[in-house]
Amino acid sequence: MKNFHIKVLDRSFEADIVSKIDNLTKPKGALGRLEELALQISLIQHTMNPELRKPHNVLFAADHGILEEGVSVSPKEVTWQQLSHFSKGGAGINFLCEQHGFKLVLVDAGVDYDIPSGHGIIDKKVRKGTRNFLYGPAMTEDELNLCIERGAEVVRDVYSEGCNVISFGEMGSGNTSPSAVWMHLFTGIDLQKCIGAGAGLNTDGICHKYGVLAKALAHYSGDERPESKIAWFGGYEMAMALGGMLQAAELGMLIIVDGFIMTSVILAASQLYPEVLEYAIFGHQGDESGHKLMLDTMNVKAILHLDLRLGEGSGAVCAYPILESAVRMINRMDSFQAVNVTKYF
Amino acid sequence: MKNFHIKVLDRSFEADIVSKIDNLTKPKGALGRLEELALQISLIQHTMNPELRKPHNVLFAADHGILEEGVSVSPKEVTWQQLSHFSKGGAGINFLCEQHGFKLVLVDAGVDYDIPSGHGIIDKKVRKGTRNFLYGPAMTEDELNLCIERGAEVVRDVYSEGCNVISFGEMGSGNTSPSAVWMHLFTGIDLQKCIGAGAGLNTDGICHKYGVLAKALAHYSGDERPESKIAWFGGYEMAMALGGMLQAAELGMLIIVDGFIMTSVILAASQLYPEVLEYAIFGHQGDESGHKLMLDTMNVKAILHLDLRLGEGSGAVCAYPILESAVRMINRMDSFQAVNVTKYF
Repeated sequence: MKNFHIKVLDRSFEADIVSKIDNLTKPKGALGRLEELALQISLIQHTMNPELRKPHNVLFAADHGILEEGVSVSPKEVTWQQLSHFSKGGAGINFLCEQHGFKLVLVDAGVDYDIPSGHGIIDKKVRKGTRNFLYGPAMTEDELNLCIERGAEVVRDVYSEGCNVISFGEMGSGNTSPSAVWMHLFTGIDLQKCIGAGAGLNTDGICHKYGVLAKALAHYSGDERPESKIAWFGGYEMAMALGGMLQAAELGMLIIVDGFIMTSVILAASQLYPEVLEYAIFGHQGDESGHKLMLDTMNVKAILHLDLRLGEGSGAVCAYPILESAVRMINRMDSFQAVNVTKYF
Repeated sequence: MKNFHIKVLDRSFEADIVSKIDNLTKPKGALGRLEELALQISLIQHTMNPELRKPHNVLFAADHGILEEGVSVSPKEVTWQQLSHFSKGGAGINFLCEQHGFKLVLVDAGVDYDIPSGHGIIDKKVRKGTRNFLYGPAMTEDELNLCIERGAEVVRDVYSEGCNVISFGEMGSGNTSPSAVWMHLFTGIDLQKCIGAGAGLNTDGICHKYGVLAKALAHYSGDERPESKIAWFGGYEMAMALGGMLQAAELGMLIIVDGFIMTSVILAASQLYPEVLEYAIFGHQGDESGHKLMLDTMNVKAILHLDLRLGEGSGAVCAYPILESAVRMINRMDSFQAVNVTKYF
């Protein structure tokens, strides 16, 4: 597997940043999460004057063999239909990217359809969908490595355009199932608590999904390495995003994590490189069961709580103006010293 | 008191709006709060294609007689210093307004200082600060009426500039005290649960604040009408914002409510005109004790939870991009009928 060199954040000038923030014209701590975000972004960029440049949302799409087991209300063809739809504008992620000045990068990681070229969808297809992990590994470890390489490649391209803040989105009918399994394997939380309604299962559907995933886990015959578990249950879009996140962290970029699926991806990534979490900001906590538990395990809090469950990177992109506020705060607000205001705390 | 004619929202075409939202290319409900907001905004504007025009943040400032009792860490001079600071840019509310395209309107409602003219601060001063309500009414009912008229006047001016979405902010050292009392009086919740740290009181300070407010409430010798209670304990900036909110609702404008103080203001406003709440969107739930309880009483949920406690309208303005997303969603997303995507729910 490709090696990543991810720097642990240099906290030696944390006190200076905190002092700068505490001297802005507001009661100490009165800008709450904005202050925390400004500190994290300043540490990642190693500067007292951070900036966000050319945000990109990289959306990986792929299909999942496990869909054959009826674990989702979303039919397989929705994956390519939506990917194609994203390329034309008019989908959820399009208006959000447009609103917040994100460039949308669409990547076919493994969609079970011949995506016509010429629509700006980057072809990184590993295979036409993963295998059904009820009967064996969803992907080989070679395929996992290929995903990680290719995800990293996409991020290097984006970085070379001057981007320093990146979110990852996904499209893949059925992908809350592999995400739930990764969550279970890497947090130790009961499988039942890791499973939710996905795009809209009812209670019967959720019970069925539980049964399928529990059986698949019982059949697991890989080993204890995270790579083995990631490959056995993962999706191509998830593995590619994982490679993308590791590459982004190596490059010192800010990673905005989307909802449940992308949270399971960075959780998996952190099994390989724990430092990746220092570069991550969690955009949105959705109502998919287990998302909060997974965030708690990593000791992180999401910025937004808007009951979104769209995927596509929507929760990450929605959170962007809050990051921008944090950066504006530290760069644009006056200090008590600079203006005639009594410091009061 | 000035009469307001606030229309109850016409729900006769609610089903049409919901059907439009449900047919957008996403699993039903997958855009969560954005869908709820799009519905509310469409109902307020009585259109299937809502729009947000020329957002304004109107910030009322005033001083409070109760500050003499040591209920706040924030000294009185901070009120005028900060108001003056806002007029020069460089404060918290300035970078947020700039970021989100808000025009900032500054109003002296009753600051205990001669604000020099020529800095764009609108002079609506009723008096140099309210009286200390530990010993009698903070303001007379005539002053309350004047505040309501003047607040309404400011909003009519803003409306005449083409604005249809307005947030209200405040600056007033000590104003969590009157807010806590209003909350207690208009929700019936124990006073203790209505009181928090304000700009930064410690536990001793909070206990002292409780003692002062409990004593003031015991001395209340007004009557049972909301007007009497509002005047006895209120602040000029709060009463002016109250008039502004009622005027905004009468004009069919969207009101974005800021944090604890502005929530107590719309709660008080709703005692006079319950319909005002239909026009309100709650931007931010802060960590001031009682804010969540107050929102629960009105059966509303805030958009953001960022631990802000700055006031100035900051929590309302921060929430604006989420409203904008809701409006973009309903106007810009394709329907399943318009594109080749299988409807899946």
